Amino acid sequence: MTWLDLPADSGFGPDNLPHGVFSDASGRRRTGIAIGDSVLDLAAATGEDVHATGTLNAFLARGPRAWADLRARLTAWLTDEAHRGRVEPHLLPRSEVTLHLPVEVADYVDFYSSQHHAENLGRMFRPDSAPLTPNWKHLPIGYHGRAGTVQVSGTPVVRPNGQRKTPAEDAPTFGPSQRLDIEAEVGFVVGVGSELGTPVPLGGFAEHVFGVCLVNDWSARDLQSWEYVPLGPFLGKSFLTSISPWVVPLAALEAARVRPPARDVPLLPYLDDTDAEPWGLDVAIEVRLNGELVSCPPFRLVYWTPAQQLAHTTVNGASLRTGDLFASGTVSGPAADQRGSFIELSWGGTEPLTLPDGTTRTFLEDGDVVTLTASAPGTAGGRISLGEVTGRVEPAPAP
Amino acid sequence: MTWLDLPADSGFGPDNLPHGVFSDASGRRRTGIAIGDSVLDLAAATGEDVHATGTLNAFLARGPRAWADLRARLTAWLTDEAHRGRVEPHLLPRSEVTLHLPVEVADYVDFYSSQHHAENLGRMFRPDSAPLTPNWKHLPIGYHGRAGTVQVSGTPVVRPNGQRKTPAEDAPTFGPSQRLDIEAEVGFVVGVGSELGTPVPLGGFAEHVFGVCLVNDWSARDLQSWEYVPLGPFLGKSFLTSISPWVVPLAALEAARVRPPARDVPLLPYLDDTDAEPWGLDVAIEVRLNGELVSCPPFRLVYWTPAQQLAHTTVNGASLRTGDLFASGTVSGPAADQRGSFIELSWGGTEPLTLPDGTTRTFLEDGDVVTLTASAPGTAGGRISLGEVTGRVEPAPAP
Repeated sequence: MTWLDLPADSGFGPDNLPHGVFSDASGRRRTGIAIGDSVLDLAAATGEDVHATGTLNAFLARGPRAWADLRARLTAWLTDEAHRGRVEPHLLPRSEVTLHLPVEVADYVDFYSSQHHAENLGRMFRPDSAPLTPNWKHLPIGYHGRAGTVQVSGTPVVRPNGQRKTPAEDAPTFGPSQRLDIEAEVGFVVGVGSELGTPVPLGGFAEHVFGVCLVNDWSARDLQSWEYVPLGPFLGKSFLTSISPWVVPLAALEAARVRPPARDVPLLPYLDDTDAEPWGLDVAIEVRLNGELVSCPPFRLVYWTPAQQLAHTTVNGASLRTGDLFASGTVSGPAADQRGSFIELSWGGTEPLTLPDGTTRTFLEDGDVVTLTASAPGTAGGRISLGEVTGRVEPAPAP
Repeated sequence: MTWLDLPADSGFGPDNLPHGVFSDASGRRRTGIAIGDSVLDLAAATGEDVHATGTLNAFLARGPRAWADLRARLTAWLTDEAHRGRVEPHLLPRSEVTLHLPVEVADYVDFYSSQHHAENLGRMFRPDSAPLTPNWKHLPIGYHGRAGTVQVSGTPVVRPNGQRKTPAEDAPTFGPSQRLDIEAEVGFVVGVGSELGTPVPLGGFAEHVFGVCLVNDWSARDLQSWEYVPLGPFLGKSFLTSISPWVVPLAALEAARVRPPARDVPLLPYLDDTDAEPWGLDVAIEVRLNGELVSCPPFRLVYWTPAQQLAHTTVNGASLRTGDLFASGTVSGPAADQRGSFIELSWGGTEPLTLPDGTTRTFLEDGDVVTLTASAPGTAGGRISLGEVTGRVEPAPAP
């Protein structure tokens, strides 16, 4: 299959070929392709300036034909021994490079597309109402997040200060968030923009979206619950959103495509994917706290697909730009060990998790390290990796 | 005062000097300064590349000393006859140039800072509750908008399609918004970014913010009311936000600075501006529908100042970037003819406005033109203009 001596089950075989941005000792940022334990220096291997800009944006803007052409070239290079002499000098050990934010993020939109997650939060916060708001099954609820604080995996998670007020208090207090949380999500990176006024239909998804990354939308639940009525989350989310350094092309996920869950409410035509190509994705996420597996959120059960999210985002005429990032929202499954946030895993802080070392956890403590990994069926029969997104919680600065 | 033959009360005298981006027949976009009925071609007059990039961002990133240096040079050029020969060849009639989006917008945040506006909406939407939510007087409520659909004044306002559902309906329908509205706002443009993890205190406002523009945050109230629970506005706002082409430097607004309204709730220290330099601004807005004055929203009465908005945005460690835009939210005063949106002017559509031609209006109709203008006390004793932001409503595309 390949002339490279790949580790077994590396998840980064020739059927994956995720794109990222790296630097070595020279400090120059350029595009790389993850293969096994190596990075292929795409700028050097191709000699093309588009891969030497320090972000993926310029290449992503070229569109699906260019993406497919490069993928075909890379596949030939890595599988045909004849290319070995040309390619091998441009392979660097991944352990010796630094990975950077792969994309200059234009707009960042976060959705709320997992029914199990939305129902869990509804049950906790509105115990006397139906778990889902009336709009939930009619449209993929989403909101804009802060693009400027989307950072690459490994960026320290400095506990945010802010206002929080419990129902028992008369006035808010200021200080470090006491309910720092994660949101395990899958993100989608737009390559090709669109014109203001021209919606992207469901079938246009793969014409615009290049690929997929992992997202941890760090959340300060106490800040969020005090601020979010009536205009939504702001400071409870805007301090940091971490993404994985490797963007997996949609082409690598062909074998992972699945039908989304059955829809039990008829959808308006622009969202009705009954007869459309399916864009559910069988991505299996794993959430680890300090190295211990605490949850396995199944992305394939998410109700709204990324194609529906994109169609919804643009149906009012809003335009897309290269580098737009949109994420699924927290992915949770029906089981307790499939929940993608600690507010769900600890049921609002009322049911602490017991960790293998005997300690317990509701929300994150300083020093905690959270790592999301994910994999999906690859086109070669095994599984491909979406890499990881990780972060370590650091203490809040003195107010 | 100046060797130029300026029109009386032009609002663009030597005490204003707003920055914008223009092109002439050559198509080249470059920075210009509005003076009287002219534009000074700053790229040509200075010979500096930073003014020839096609956006203000590169110059804004240079910071307050560079802003002040340029302002001093411009003042000398325009007031000292000795410079006339050098400057005059670079003055172009404003009527002969095209104005463009002045800033490449990084993140866009919209606040909700006018107490009269928030109370009006509260009374309409939650008649059985207190008009203000419990958090309103403790923090400036804000949310992220879509940066990619911030466009320059004059951009057509294509009526958005989308989902809307009245309480009487069982399910949403799809089609053109029936409640298309404006929001008359003042916007603030960040020049100097900040580091992730380092809040900008109240006193740091003028170290980061370059200047001020007018904002019309076009809103589809029917789309918004169906979608916005629980995560805030999305498609009801994201189809278009228009800004004025001229960014007025803070330095031009020294005489417009006023104390904001008295605070009747104690503020947490990071927001407490009791002893701080005041950043209320006596900007008088005028709203015209098809040329007829329909409202005069007074920005000086807005409860939360832009300095408080910036301190709040960053108190959780969120970073700023050059080109960040944040806006006040709809500006409304206490009187009926000081309301900055049609949902307020028509009280939720129940009290139509009668226009001079005898027609009535609740929300906007196709063909309507809305123009916001504004002025403020200048440092030379008269008033300076913030220019205008205008847009014409065009019919929704066929779904």
